[in-house]
Amino acid sequence: MIPYQWRALNDQVPGADASYCMHNFKAAAAQNASKATQGKRFVPPTYTFRGFNALPEDPAHPDPDKFYGFVFQDTDFSKWIEAVGYSLAHHPDAELEATADDAIDIVCAAQLDNGYLDTYYILNGMDRHFTNLKDHHELYCLGHLIEGAVAYYQGTGKSKLLKAACRFADYVACRFGTEEGKLDGYPGHEIAEMALVKLAEVTGEKKYFDLAVYFVRQRGQEPLYFEREDRARVAAEGWGYQPNANDPKPYAYYQAHEPVINQHEAVGHAVRAVYFYAGVADVARLTDDPDLLSAVRKLWRNIVDKKLYITGGIGATRHGEAFSYDYDLPNDLAYSETCAAIALAFFARRMLEIEPKSEYGDVMETALYNTVLSGMALDGKSFFYVNPLEVRPETAHHRDENFSHVKTVRQKWFGCACCPPNIARLVESVQEYAYTLADDGNTLFTHLYMSGSVGCELAGVPVTLSMEAGLPWSGAGRAALHFSSESCDKPEQGRIAGDAATATLAFRLPAWAGGEEAAAAVKVDGEAANRITREIHEGYLYLTGEWRDGDAVVFDFPMPVHMVATNPRVCENVGKVAFVRGPITFAAEGHDNGDLLQNLVVDTTAVGADCSGVKAVPFDFVAGAKGVDERGTGEVEAVTRPMVKLEVPALRVAVERETADDAPADAPRTPLYSAYKPAAVTSVTATLIPYFAWANRGESEMRVWLNAR
Amino acid sequence: MIPYQWRALNDQVPGADASYCMHNFKAAAAQNASKATQGKRFVPPTYTFRGFNALPEDPAHPDPDKFYGFVFQDTDFSKWIEAVGYSLAHHPDAELEATADDAIDIVCAAQLDNGYLDTYYILNGMDRHFTNLKDHHELYCLGHLIEGAVAYYQGTGKSKLLKAACRFADYVACRFGTEEGKLDGYPGHEIAEMALVKLAEVTGEKKYFDLAVYFVRQRGQEPLYFEREDRARVAAEGWGYQPNANDPKPYAYYQAHEPVINQHEAVGHAVRAVYFYAGVADVARLTDDPDLLSAVRKLWRNIVDKKLYITGGIGATRHGEAFSYDYDLPNDLAYSETCAAIALAFFARRMLEIEPKSEYGDVMETALYNTVLSGMALDGKSFFYVNPLEVRPETAHHRDENFSHVKTVRQKWFGCACCPPNIARLVESVQEYAYTLADDGNTLFTHLYMSGSVGCELAGVPVTLSMEAGLPWSGAGRAALHFSSESCDKPEQGRIAGDAATATLAFRLPAWAGGEEAAAAVKVDGEAANRITREIHEGYLYLTGEWRDGDAVVFDFPMPVHMVATNPRVCENVGKVAFVRGPITFAAEGHDNGDLLQNLVVDTTAVGADCSGVKAVPFDFVAGAKGVDERGTGEVEAVTRPMVKLEVPALRVAVERETADDAPADAPRTPLYSAYKPAAVTSVTATLIPYFAWANRGESEMRVWLNAR
Repeated sequence: MIPYQWRALNDQVPGADASYCMHNFKAAAAQNASKATQGKRFVPPTYTFRGFNALPEDPAHPDPDKFYGFVFQDTDFSKWIEAVGYSLAHHPDAELEATADDAIDIVCAAQLDNGYLDTYYILNGMDRHFTNLKDHHELYCLGHLIEGAVAYYQGTGKSKLLKAACRFADYVACRFGTEEGKLDGYPGHEIAEMALVKLAEVTGEKKYFDLAVYFVRQRGQEPLYFEREDRARVAAEGWGYQPNANDPKPYAYYQAHEPVINQHEAVGHAVRAVYFYAGVADVARLTDDPDLLSAVRKLWRNIVDKKLYITGGIGATRHGEAFSYDYDLPNDLAYSETCAAIALAFFARRMLEIEPKSEYGDVMETALYNTVLSGMALDGKSFFYVNPLEVRPETAHHRDENFSHVKTVRQKWFGCACCPPNIARLVESVQEYAYTLADDGNTLFTHLYMSGSVGCELAGVPVTLSMEAGLPWSGAGRAALHFSSESCDKPEQGRIAGDAATATLAFRLPAWAGGEEAAAAVKVDGEAANRITREIHEGYLYLTGEWRDGDAVVFDFPMPVHMVATNPRVCENVGKVAFVRGPITFAAEGHDNGDLLQNLVVDTTAVGADCSGVKAVPFDFVAGAKGVDERGTGEVEAVTRPMVKLEVPALRVAVERETADDAPADAPRTPLYSAYKPAAVTSVTATLIPYFAWANRGESEMRVWLNAR
Repeated sequence: MIPYQWRALNDQVPGADASYCMHNFKAAAAQNASKATQGKRFVPPTYTFRGFNALPEDPAHPDPDKFYGFVFQDTDFSKWIEAVGYSLAHHPDAELEATADDAIDIVCAAQLDNGYLDTYYILNGMDRHFTNLKDHHELYCLGHLIEGAVAYYQGTGKSKLLKAACRFADYVACRFGTEEGKLDGYPGHEIAEMALVKLAEVTGEKKYFDLAVYFVRQRGQEPLYFEREDRARVAAEGWGYQPNANDPKPYAYYQAHEPVINQHEAVGHAVRAVYFYAGVADVARLTDDPDLLSAVRKLWRNIVDKKLYITGGIGATRHGEAFSYDYDLPNDLAYSETCAAIALAFFARRMLEIEPKSEYGDVMETALYNTVLSGMALDGKSFFYVNPLEVRPETAHHRDENFSHVKTVRQKWFGCACCPPNIARLVESVQEYAYTLADDGNTLFTHLYMSGSVGCELAGVPVTLSMEAGLPWSGAGRAALHFSSESCDKPEQGRIAGDAATATLAFRLPAWAGGEEAAAAVKVDGEAANRITREIHEGYLYLTGEWRDGDAVVFDFPMPVHMVATNPRVCENVGKVAFVRGPITFAAEGHDNGDLLQNLVVDTTAVGADCSGVKAVPFDFVAGAKGVDERGTGEVEAVTRPMVKLEVPALRVAVERETADDAPADAPRTPLYSAYKPAAVTSVTATLIPYFAWANRGESEMRVWLNAR
């Protein structure tokens, strides 16, 4: 995926929308070299009808001096370099590293002497920078630059980009604040909050944390900064958004309508919102502020209790890519952006750092295994931005405007390409979601069960936890502890085999395995069990005592199939069920079940209360699809992946033959309405595949929530 | 309603959108008087962001010389005068007639010497008239002017407006056609086709019929006129719609993508489409052209078999106010414009004139009693443009953009006010839908059973058919034949009591009464039965023989409750039922059943296959609601109407209490998802009211299709 995305950033993927990301950095670097930036008056780029996306008149010949793309196009690079950093940490690759270093040279050459680094204003005119924080993404670019720079530094030890990020952050710190002469604003699109916390941790510089605290606390303070900014723009330029009396919360889209400590409903643009809540959680944890802690807990509850799809998706409405109102979770109209599910994983991980509760891990796991993975084809080369829970290809064939945001097959790239590199950086850093170390360094938490090993200093001793796990297909596995620094951050400490440590290994007890009842499935292996005490707290099993080299924990979580119903306040799902097994949400595709999936009805009696009527069958999923258009959209390489499918007892409602439109008017016809009678049904076996794997075999219908009887 | 609408046309309804209709005619008349029209170059009016609606900068002080409103604003008058004409025919009202005559004087004063009459071009510049037939509604204005003029002439005998309409039609006839030097175009928004047929019938002038035939046949001929017009506009003005390769049928919206004889799917803007099909049906009937007859039959079948709501509504999608694809009939996203249901009645009536088949009458009756009536509040003073089958007020409260077209209460007027005056003209002329006379004059058809009397010349004898009918609440009634010209078009013939006529009275056998089986419910009263033969054909009972003064037909159609299911190709309605009784479709409102109507589940077993478990209960429906905003939107006067409601055995799915958003994070909570178990239900009686009466008691949820078990 990483080399593919590099080609995309350089506009070299045939048939895909151009990014112009590296083009812009090169143009800015060239302008810097010629000192042409100084005194350049702002001229906005020429936007196309697609909104904020500036495209060249002749796509084959972009002007080498001009800015193209969205205002946040720089972040394509930042997300990519972040993924590269994570990748190089575990998979050294000299060629990739050389490519990345070259890219970093270009990016750093684009940076101004004062530290500012956003090619949109550098190329279009610096006199207007920081005058439209609400809509233009300068501080969002800062945030992503920091995240990318930190990852590359941690992956390679190279600090050039990190220093550039610090210089940009320093410039922002000297321009923003409540002090006289500073701008009392904050990001229009959040991410800088959590990025600055990370930067402070990596550099040890408190000033970056202070800036994060400022952004978190200042947001939504009266008089609203964005409203002042809007009014100033209207006064100066005669145009701009003017909040009106009909919109009671015009800045809720930005979570900037009131201070976060007063917010208890997740609102507005879902990615912005949850990036923000993740940053607030960071600040809440590090400041231990009870109001901030209360705010993030309430916002979490609101999402999980009222605004979360069973796929871990959030942000139900396309309009503003936003959270809808409580319990509004349409399946077919859903937006459920890939990036929003990623944001939810960020938020959940930070809540786990505040207080290890298994629910945070459960939701994080659901988001990662379902909506995040759904965002990418199995061959890693095409992507979904939008992840609905019900798709009928006919909406696309008939150009149904209600569903124009829904793609029935994955796309190669997007002009607004937030999702693909966001998946890349998350997949490459997924270990950070699997494990956390408690602040006192004595407890190592396992949140996700993934094969691999993690190194850290536990109770002052370098250890490696080697995990073998069958997730997501089986709940069995083994975690072995070795006293070694091989996978440790501090290799200089060397191997200390034979040591012992009094410490705690804490394991999440997944809700899908029965929650706290699943503790019985986790055992300390052999005689070590005598040295270790067991305690359950908030869905985690704490194993505490003297751990020795080679000790192991074996687990065999039950992974039953669950037939799930929705709170009846959710209008669409009354009378419907969905199936989950372990962390995987399942879906029916037309490929396996025929189309007109509304007529595939789960036989709940045959399924049984314990789902004993459902078979979970390991199988090889064979992906591979032709493109649906000349750009190869929806094309998936023939790859095979072991998975588990569900065979569910169901009924098929008989569908009469359709009357042809050009049949003679007196031909026999199938009426649209008729007297109700119990539908004629035949017993069938519904085949459900993992949701994340849908649309890997070409177009067909898909449904997560099935009618039930 | 008529006086109210006159105030609306004169911008005198407080709180309602201004019409500017009479303003424009006055401005054009004044300009005409000053001869300022000549040489005036076209300057388009200043449009607001709402699209094609030109509004004054200061609504309190419109410029007396300027055009305001939509390009088709003249038709507000035409529809109003049509309603006035029908009304005066039956209810003489000197004051109303004087008002109408004054209005006609103003309108006629606006007409140019050459007969042209469309204030949009008269006021904005005549040099561009007939250059944008596709989007500007000159020929639509012609059509409505004709319909209004004919009705006013028939209602009052006054011909001033009819002559004006003829002069406009003459001008159009001399400008349009396939001959050299003429425009080979046709209306962008159809209606002129059926209007011209009517004008030809009233005036006896074949040239108007020929123009209608030309419009019907020329539409969609290659090379497409609208495409040529678009390309010419782009060439001349540098802008305009440019059809592209991605849109396979760019002119299907206008039904102008191919000749009508090749069309077999109802497509595009629903009102345009079905007005057109009605015109095609007129021409097909009068020319007996087999290709045209085949076309209208196929288009009818497509609508009835695949694109018709159970409420008689058509045009499922808001996008283009258009027909959606086959079987796409969403309940909540529905558009189902009031005017489209009116158009369907026009089309059905014309199909009945081609060939009396009861299905045409059934569909016409459904449209009239449900969606058309739903378009107006019971007090006649507020209106729905859009008539969904499922409404949740929270979509409006949360400004859900997916449903921004859906109003939860009726509005006082609309800037685009097609529907209110369209209802007025239809309601005032409903008798024309109830009865038709066969071409040979020997058969009088009764399509709709409505109390009242109809006069005509039957088999050469002036007769009056006096109908007493209990519809829509009971199927009983009596139709008495009197030999008299009292209600006849030719009063000069005087009374001819005592005569007899050998003729046929034909009665529709409604599907809701059992179709042809319902013939047993129709009896010739008394000894006359001996003189009359009975024959059933295509759902009509033909009673033929020697009819004498005072003979009567009594009928007592059974009116059972029907529980209806939908063809399972309709995605949304699987597992749902709706109830109809007679011509009335019923709906559940939150007022009677509580909100969260998704949890009201019909108990189909208790209902029974014959619906014996359902009670049909006569009751007094009490309307009356406060407005939901300061404009009084949704306000309904306290009026009482006798109706029938249904009491349906049902189940209520238990809904747990909602967790408050500001509850402490550790408060007990109701989860969004949980293991499926058969829902806890309580037996309840669902109360269903006639669909047309919904939203007459203020905001609440509404559903036609109910979940069923």
